Amino acid sequence: MGLIVQKFGGTSVADLERIRYVAKRVGKTYDQGNDVIVILSAMAGVTDRLIDMAAQIAESPEKRELDVLLATGEQTTAALLAITLKDMNYPAISMLGHQAKLVTDCTFGNARILEIGAGTIIDLIEKRNIVVVAGFQGCDINGNITTLGRGGSDTSAVAIASALKADICEIYTDVDGIYTADPNICKKARKINTISYDEMLNMASLGAKVLQIRSVGFAKKYNVPIHVRSSFSEEEGTMVVSEDSGMEQLVVSAVTHDKNQARITLRKVHDQPGVAAKIFSPIAETGIVVDMIIQNTRAEGQTDLTFTVPKEDFSAAMEIERKVAGKIGAEDVLGDKNIAKVSVVGVGMKNHSGVASIMFNTLARENINIMMISTSEIRISCVIEEKYTELAVRVLHTAFGLDKED
Amino acid sequence: MGLIVQKFGGTSVADLERIRYVAKRVGKTYDQGNDVIVILSAMAGVTDRLIDMAAQIAESPEKRELDVLLATGEQTTAALLAITLKDMNYPAISMLGHQAKLVTDCTFGNARILEIGAGTIIDLIEKRNIVVVAGFQGCDINGNITTLGRGGSDTSAVAIASALKADICEIYTDVDGIYTADPNICKKARKINTISYDEMLNMASLGAKVLQIRSVGFAKKYNVPIHVRSSFSEEEGTMVVSEDSGMEQLVVSAVTHDKNQARITLRKVHDQPGVAAKIFSPIAETGIVVDMIIQNTRAEGQTDLTFTVPKEDFSAAMEIERKVAGKIGAEDVLGDKNIAKVSVVGVGMKNHSGVASIMFNTLARENINIMMISTSEIRISCVIEEKYTELAVRVLHTAFGLDKED
Repeated sequence: MGLIVQKFGGTSVADLERIRYVAKRVGKTYDQGNDVIVILSAMAGVTDRLIDMAAQIAESPEKRELDVLLATGEQTTAALLAITLKDMNYPAISMLGHQAKLVTDCTFGNARILEIGAGTIIDLIEKRNIVVVAGFQGCDINGNITTLGRGGSDTSAVAIASALKADICEIYTDVDGIYTADPNICKKARKINTISYDEMLNMASLGAKVLQIRSVGFAKKYNVPIHVRSSFSEEEGTMVVSEDSGMEQLVVSAVTHDKNQARITLRKVHDQPGVAAKIFSPIAETGIVVDMIIQNTRAEGQTDLTFTVPKEDFSAAMEIERKVAGKIGAEDVLGDKNIAKVSVVGVGMKNHSGVASIMFNTLARENINIMMISTSEIRISCVIEEKYTELAVRVLHTAFGLDKED
Repeated sequence: MGLIVQKFGGTSVADLERIRYVAKRVGKTYDQGNDVIVILSAMAGVTDRLIDMAAQIAESPEKRELDVLLATGEQTTAALLAITLKDMNYPAISMLGHQAKLVTDCTFGNARILEIGAGTIIDLIEKRNIVVVAGFQGCDINGNITTLGRGGSDTSAVAIASALKADICEIYTDVDGIYTADPNICKKARKINTISYDEMLNMASLGAKVLQIRSVGFAKKYNVPIHVRSSFSEEEGTMVVSEDSGMEQLVVSAVTHDKNQARITLRKVHDQPGVAAKIFSPIAETGIVVDMIIQNTRAEGQTDLTFTVPKEDFSAAMEIERKVAGKIGAEDVLGDKNIAKVSVVGVGMKNHSGVASIMFNTLARENINIMMISTSEIRISCVIEEKYTELAVRVLHTAFGLDKED
């Protein structure tokens, strides 16, 4: 018995039948004597539909208003689950972001949690209520509705788990755990039993899609144990915990890919002090996250500067950079949306050399051109042409000995 | 130039194309130098879909949670209109019920407005913002989301118009004004140029569907002039004003009908003091509005007691009355959903007798049986079998000289 935070993703609440199933699962946990806080995403596809609606009426939808629109998705599922639980005679109550006092900064569309006024939820929990919190949303100090970015419900869940000192934060999703690669494109991918926050951080940022990166950072900081598991089975999933917990020590733990990237190049930039700030500050100010940056020196004090942004921010970033190019006298701004990032991740890499050369050779053997490279202590990433993504993942998975036995 | 409240109903914001049209209309009013507050309903059909969803997962969906669910409808349209206006470079900002400080009592599903903290909206208006308020919703003093009942956006509009002392409250809808009867079933119905609050009050309650009754009561109390007009044309619609404003003085101004009624009869009730309270208090406590009540005395101190409730409350009311019947020893509870109420309305009736007999004779001539009758100073209503509704409306419209000339 304890305090359990259960977060259910979009596919887990995709329709009323699944919501009923979630209600049963929540009810079972509650009946075992646990206190339960549930965090919900919007129904699968709903957020995309809302974004698409907004895109139909405005080229760059006002971010404050877009958040008001998007917040309806989680409001809907929270209400529906509370209705279902009530109908099953559980004392459930829904809470929206502002009601749960999930206070964020004012970065609409990608807000960061500043604090959680846990008092309201604690009061309700102490009276043995099941509290159903709409994920993904909060409010700023002026009462404006904000959202936490794609996958923000994970962060809602971990943040609430940490604020309420929950015993565990269960992330229910449509996969049964974290895999060594996306099983949809790599048939030989294996489920990982335990993974460290750091590896997960690198995987999430690389598009593993199972957990929002910010939620893992939060979990690491406050040491919240996360259990990623399937909402469709009772099987154990993958525990995400701190590094010491005696896990398998493979050199590479997983191969990940991310197609949600676009590349922007500023050609013939005058290589002067302060020029990078001029290029990246206006982007950062709009809240767009730049991932990889590469600078190629040309002759005559000129360089080409290439960086990647999420695909959905591509047109906004291109627009900004065209203006910047004018001001700093760059010759041209080129854009490319047909790229993907493929990465290998593993804490074991710290103690092994040669991982990079295996990776480059493996890709070269398939004639896959590497456009950009970036590395961290436990990760190597390559940007390649999007069409080679699946092939690259499979050959790397094999090359690093991750394939499951037949 | 002045302060204009514009409310757009569900059909006026039914899709993105229409929302764009609404934005143009709002923008035009703003460009003429007016301050504009916009109140929006949910897209046509959305509230029904949400109610239907809730009904699929729970027999009697918890009312607090149902309000959380329903409030998403107006949140969506408010955000979409604000996005559209912003895209057209108007300084628009959306406000949800709790943000607009529309404070209500705690009667979920049918809350009454207690006060409007106009300060926030006034501040925004003074900075020449177009404020887009999500209609239909408010919040109670504990921050729970409430809704104002079907058509509640009208009440939002009139309440905000009165709190901000607006010059006029324009109600944009899919009809071009108030008619002498529903033009869909009575081809000879005429548009009324001016109608009194009192007539409108009687018509709204009888199912004219154009304005929520509570909004008219509000408008009457605070003398807010309402202009009901089409969102699809520039034509003048119907002004709803106080009675003195020199309007046409027909004996009967309109024939209305209401199919959203159901009848419940408690048979062989012991006719003792306090029995009516026992029958109606539990219904009133759940917030169900009883319309007509008729008591037929039988022999031996027993009576049959018949009353009508809105169709959507029928099963809840039946359940309550079955329990009541057991307690007070009534023999039986009968229900009938196949009824309709047909009414004639007119301030001129005050000074004319014979209206009732014309009405009864006209229905009798068509062999339409009258099940229940109720009257007010300016209205006579008859409950009849639902299937005769259209016929009854047409013959009464002709009998009271309302038909337009060909």
